[in-house]
Amino acid sequence: MSEFKLIEQYFKSSNPRIDLGIGDDAALLQIPSGYQLAVSTDMLVSGTHFYPDCPAFDIGWKSLAVNISDMAAMGAIPKWITLGISIPEQNTAWLEQFSRGLLACAKQYDVELIGGDTTKGPLNICVQIMGIVPIGKALQRQGAHLGDDIWVSGELGLAALGLGLLQGRYHSFTHTEQSIMLKRLQRPEPRLSLGLMIRELAHSCIDISDGLAADLGHLLKASGLGASIIWEKIPHLSLEKTIPNAELRQCVLAGGDDYELCFTASPANQAQILACGQRLGIKLSVIGKTQKEPGLKISYENQPPIPLEMIGYDHFR
Amino acid sequence: MSEFKLIEQYFKSSNPRIDLGIGDDAALLQIPSGYQLAVSTDMLVSGTHFYPDCPAFDIGWKSLAVNISDMAAMGAIPKWITLGISIPEQNTAWLEQFSRGLLACAKQYDVELIGGDTTKGPLNICVQIMGIVPIGKALQRQGAHLGDDIWVSGELGLAALGLGLLQGRYHSFTHTEQSIMLKRLQRPEPRLSLGLMIRELAHSCIDISDGLAADLGHLLKASGLGASIIWEKIPHLSLEKTIPNAELRQCVLAGGDDYELCFTASPANQAQILACGQRLGIKLSVIGKTQKEPGLKISYENQPPIPLEMIGYDHFR
Repeated sequence: MSEFKLIEQYFKSSNPRIDLGIGDDAALLQIPSGYQLAVSTDMLVSGTHFYPDCPAFDIGWKSLAVNISDMAAMGAIPKWITLGISIPEQNTAWLEQFSRGLLACAKQYDVELIGGDTTKGPLNICVQIMGIVPIGKALQRQGAHLGDDIWVSGELGLAALGLGLLQGRYHSFTHTEQSIMLKRLQRPEPRLSLGLMIRELAHSCIDISDGLAADLGHLLKASGLGASIIWEKIPHLSLEKTIPNAELRQCVLAGGDDYELCFTASPANQAQILACGQRLGIKLSVIGKTQKEPGLKISYENQPPIPLEMIGYDHFR
Repeated sequence: MSEFKLIEQYFKSSNPRIDLGIGDDAALLQIPSGYQLAVSTDMLVSGTHFYPDCPAFDIGWKSLAVNISDMAAMGAIPKWITLGISIPEQNTAWLEQFSRGLLACAKQYDVELIGGDTTKGPLNICVQIMGIVPIGKALQRQGAHLGDDIWVSGELGLAALGLGLLQGRYHSFTHTEQSIMLKRLQRPEPRLSLGLMIRELAHSCIDISDGLAADLGHLLKASGLGASIIWEKIPHLSLEKTIPNAELRQCVLAGGDDYELCFTASPANQAQILACGQRLGIKLSVIGKTQKEPGLKISYENQPPIPLEMIGYDHFR
């Protein structure tokens, strides 16, 4: 199976940071003293996570990017990945593009592929990522304090809008809007530098992969708190004149695949956090506050909460 | 999707050896000082690695066992796994049995599931394993010395014979033979204790997953050596009267999935190595010697080498 050899060939690199890389029964690594190992895995399946005709480069990029996003959410420095991939047939051109995408993302975030398994079967990509974080310093879902500001990075809903575009549901977006949406969907840029910079400033953090309502919900549950957030404060493209309001809300609040960070921090840290965003060129917004009463309340300013069913929360979960 | 919740529920356990387990963006682990991390991954696909009607318990067991075998081959102590699994539809009964099999294997080899990703798609299981090994002590494929004995554990060809049974190719085996073969194919027992015991005695090691000829070939290539091995010395069931000789040779030399260890060691260590086998109740056999001339030669005692094509080497690879 020449393509399996090709991919191993293509992926193989000698790296002084690895004691033993691809080509033995296991890779060997050393964790610097004073650090914990952070480990996460994500599986992407054709037809479930991407359309079969999605460019192979983008599939390669995204397979790694979603894993790096998990490291970002922990405030961990990503270091190494393994790749399990099954592909249905010999397709050297596809594999080459896939490898290029994965390695481009690996290069951008300084991550090394250390091992893997290639096999025949329906297209399925499973990346496992390992990073390091100073002992006891990792950001977790638990840890939010009562009265914390709730922050999100970037703009939400773009990936869901991009998916709608691919499904032929939208026809009125400008060319620029379309390309922003598709880029977010297919080549997400995990907020790694941000995760590392806020590690000492935030109390808790999660990446937004299932949608703001669901992921902030996970964070609140883990922290034993509730929250109120205000629609007008949630950063998103102003598309109220282009698509129905309810649909926009659904994309922003319940659309997945954004890979922005949602975190909580003491109001005393606002200025420092805003400075981090400025240094990185990333918009950071306070969208609400944690509160004692459990559950997540989303409302227009000075209005009663919007019922969660109305934002498609359950549907998208 | 209740079954995904079920599997996470079922798999979740609190363990004092893990700093942070299932349920956050990443798990957090500590590697004891003086140790390297050993990392490996294997992907099992329905239709490629097992028949769709294979008992779910066995699929769960084997998914982990093949990864533990990689740790055994490195002389590493397996510690943690992540699991990526895609399944086509809600099937609680299947998932429960799968979990039971995986966890039974995890318990037997003292391994902890620390994270994972469950998704919808054609059945695919990707386990990634992490173990620890004292720095610089890992067994590798490279490192064989000229004049080393070549050892194998257990008996070879059983899994390939089991596969033949499932394919309806054999009808003359005794009930006992059949159950030995099927057990080897579906519930392999990686040679973990052996790998750990020979770590200081062997020069190089590999587990036999693709067949003796292929895997010993990898070891020799990595070590820059060749070898001669003798058919009569290769441990296998005496089935010469039940199936054709050529077919038996093919199963023993080129059948995969045995998960025995093949290793090389100085002849001076023979007695110590045999003692390890006795203590573990595992048959250990010297089947030949490494030599300077590259390539692998297999022959009947005092006969010229058997051409590798004749043992189905290429076919099975």
